[in-house]
Amino acid sequence: MTIVRPRIVIVGGGFGGMSAAKALKRIDADITLIDRTNYHLFQPMLYQVATASLAPSDITAPIRYILRNHKNVTVLLAEVNGIDVNRKVVSVDIPAREIPYDFLILAPGSRHSYFGHTEWEEFAPGLKAVEDASEVRRRFLLAFERAEKAADLEDREANLTFIIVGGGPTGVELSGALPPIAREALYRDFRHIDTRKTRVILLEGGPVILPSFPQELRDVALKSLEEIGVDVRTNSVVTEVNEDGVRIGDERILSRTVFWAAGNEASPLGKMLGVPLDRAGRVLVTDDLSIPGHEEVFVAGDLAHVIRKDGRLVPGVAPAANQEGVTAAKNVIRILRRQPTRPFRYFNKGDLAVIGRSRAIADFGKVRFGGRIAWLLWLFVHIMYLVGFRNRVTVFIEWAYNYFTYQRGVRLITNAERRRPAAPLP
Amino acid sequence: MTIVRPRIVIVGGGFGGMSAAKALKRIDADITLIDRTNYHLFQPMLYQVATASLAPSDITAPIRYILRNHKNVTVLLAEVNGIDVNRKVVSVDIPAREIPYDFLILAPGSRHSYFGHTEWEEFAPGLKAVEDASEVRRRFLLAFERAEKAADLEDREANLTFIIVGGGPTGVELSGALPPIAREALYRDFRHIDTRKTRVILLEGGPVILPSFPQELRDVALKSLEEIGVDVRTNSVVTEVNEDGVRIGDERILSRTVFWAAGNEASPLGKMLGVPLDRAGRVLVTDDLSIPGHEEVFVAGDLAHVIRKDGRLVPGVAPAANQEGVTAAKNVIRILRRQPTRPFRYFNKGDLAVIGRSRAIADFGKVRFGGRIAWLLWLFVHIMYLVGFRNRVTVFIEWAYNYFTYQRGVRLITNAERRRPAAPLP
Repeated sequence: MTIVRPRIVIVGGGFGGMSAAKALKRIDADITLIDRTNYHLFQPMLYQVATASLAPSDITAPIRYILRNHKNVTVLLAEVNGIDVNRKVVSVDIPAREIPYDFLILAPGSRHSYFGHTEWEEFAPGLKAVEDASEVRRRFLLAFERAEKAADLEDREANLTFIIVGGGPTGVELSGALPPIAREALYRDFRHIDTRKTRVILLEGGPVILPSFPQELRDVALKSLEEIGVDVRTNSVVTEVNEDGVRIGDERILSRTVFWAAGNEASPLGKMLGVPLDRAGRVLVTDDLSIPGHEEVFVAGDLAHVIRKDGRLVPGVAPAANQEGVTAAKNVIRILRRQPTRPFRYFNKGDLAVIGRSRAIADFGKVRFGGRIAWLLWLFVHIMYLVGFRNRVTVFIEWAYNYFTYQRGVRLITNAERRRPAAPLP
Repeated sequence: MTIVRPRIVIVGGGFGGMSAAKALKRIDADITLIDRTNYHLFQPMLYQVATASLAPSDITAPIRYILRNHKNVTVLLAEVNGIDVNRKVVSVDIPAREIPYDFLILAPGSRHSYFGHTEWEEFAPGLKAVEDASEVRRRFLLAFERAEKAADLEDREANLTFIIVGGGPTGVELSGALPPIAREALYRDFRHIDTRKTRVILLEGGPVILPSFPQELRDVALKSLEEIGVDVRTNSVVTEVNEDGVRIGDERILSRTVFWAAGNEASPLGKMLGVPLDRAGRVLVTDDLSIPGHEEVFVAGDLAHVIRKDGRLVPGVAPAANQEGVTAAKNVIRILRRQPTRPFRYFNKGDLAVIGRSRAIADFGKVRFGGRIAWLLWLFVHIMYLVGFRNRVTVFIEWAYNYFTYQRGVRLITNAERRRPAAPLP
């Protein structure tokens, strides 16, 4: 095809979409990046916002700000509610209109999934967006307030019991972060309760936690979690979640605070492409990340179902989304230059998971280790990553200060139901 | 009266209530401090949260944390919905119960007032609580997003016009903070609009802005505001506020974003005391800040109507609330020691108001000045005050960094109406 000044639409301002926009910086094109929020979120540290260790503003940056020097990019704050790959248009809300494209890079991410039990969401919020983290933080902090006011022992214990459903990295990081805060940051704040008696229970339906890690690291993680005081229960499939806690078959666990980290489902935008999806709603992309029958439509990030050479799925992590975004962008450039596209190759930079406040596990294939060294590595990698958002030295000072002193300001409970809700505004 | 271990209830965790609790540290008593939020708010810098210069967590600290070493204080997160001064009980919600007291110190603060036009609140949010500031910030940032998407010139201009109603310190600080951010922080972020064309209009119903300041400083403030680009209109009584803007008699000003800083009304708790109130709902306290007929009930902060020696009202500012809280607490101690109470004397530490990002005016009675020196003084006083919240050096570094670089992270728009609302939780 011959296109003088191509129109490229990127859906999503997460890792996939942002890396695609950046990789397209030098080409002569009209790029529109659409997101329903005005910020890029550094999702790997979202659990720290949820546990009142960092503020939302510590891990977000406005998409417009990040792309302010990308003169070929127009940022649009809107929700995509339709894609027509035959007419080559994307539909957005407020104001409702269609945006035509010559190339589409789709990177809308995923949401947590309740496996059909959407009624559980009210009792067990997940952790994907900033609002989710604020909600988790609110419930976490309110539980202690309710325990302090509790009329009887059962009510008090139910309020001091926190259940995390799902033993993947998010569940492990969230459950590991709660006990130190309860014990070290909060215990002098209350008069009627001993926050050191907080119970944190991590429920995993399968036989092991962190199934994507090798056995030896899973053992390290399990041991570390148990040392922190997390009650890890595998083979525990949750069969009910309600205001009183959870049910696992015949067993009931009383808890007023349940968090959900058990599964993801891809963005519903995948369904609009008219191509085959996997069970989780991910698009079965071709080798070069385009969709079958439409070489001008690419998918990156959590929405893409991509198989590695060894047959395993590329994981839904930030480095994978970044790499896919770059490959999609480069393939757009190659098509414009009448060159053949190139297949995507996942480069696994290694997997890291934090346990508590000073341990982690690191898997680099042949090199595997756990403990404080892994935690320092995690810290280094994440702090360096955050650097792109803000100022290197300041981020480090601030982060270190907040982390080691249990920053007090972020322990605020906002949006309590007493306040009037935000007025609807376009 | 003879009370072995007195029960003291303090309502409000603002400046009045917190200073009272601190002044009671060494007495043998059961003190209950009740607030409906879990944090103390440094309200003088709230407008900086509203204008995306600071994050909410920069100017808040958990009440429990501040009072963690006050072993005679129990903090209760609850809303007070009744006071019976004859039975000496305070009623709270969730769980509903009555808390008996021997002494009551009432410092619940105030809310902004729409002079009977509560229907205006939806179109013109005020600025008292953290949630207000988040809402103002959301509307401020969304206006540029809508302007970027606007279909015609009129819609674009209406979205780039911001109206602040009320020429007191809050209105002046808010209106002065908007133009620099629009011009310096945002102008490279957009493609279809020139944010430097943002109009900010400050409407004051009376003949002058900052009526509590002397004429010479009002002139300095007015000149500074006009230099920044604020369109200051005095003698402009707003007669209607709706989604299209405001009406001043026959004149209409089109604007999609109106903020309210025009008046305060005291907490409705004052009405429950059964004693005379002033027009704004403030309690006409006696010399020692107790209420007529009940020497065991004290009022401090915005709810107290206190007259200075020169006949003027003690202003609703943080230093006044602090001083009143301390006096109320000391008078409680004096009654317990069978000593006569002492009358309250307001010590005016001076008045400061910021204009824009590098000017201020300072009024110390005989010494009056404006400009950069006044701004540096304002900065010093406020930073030193914030010190109690966090760590001296960190606060300063962070604040300076955020202020001079226009911190990007805080420019996040959250709680958009698209997100599911927070589930109701006690």
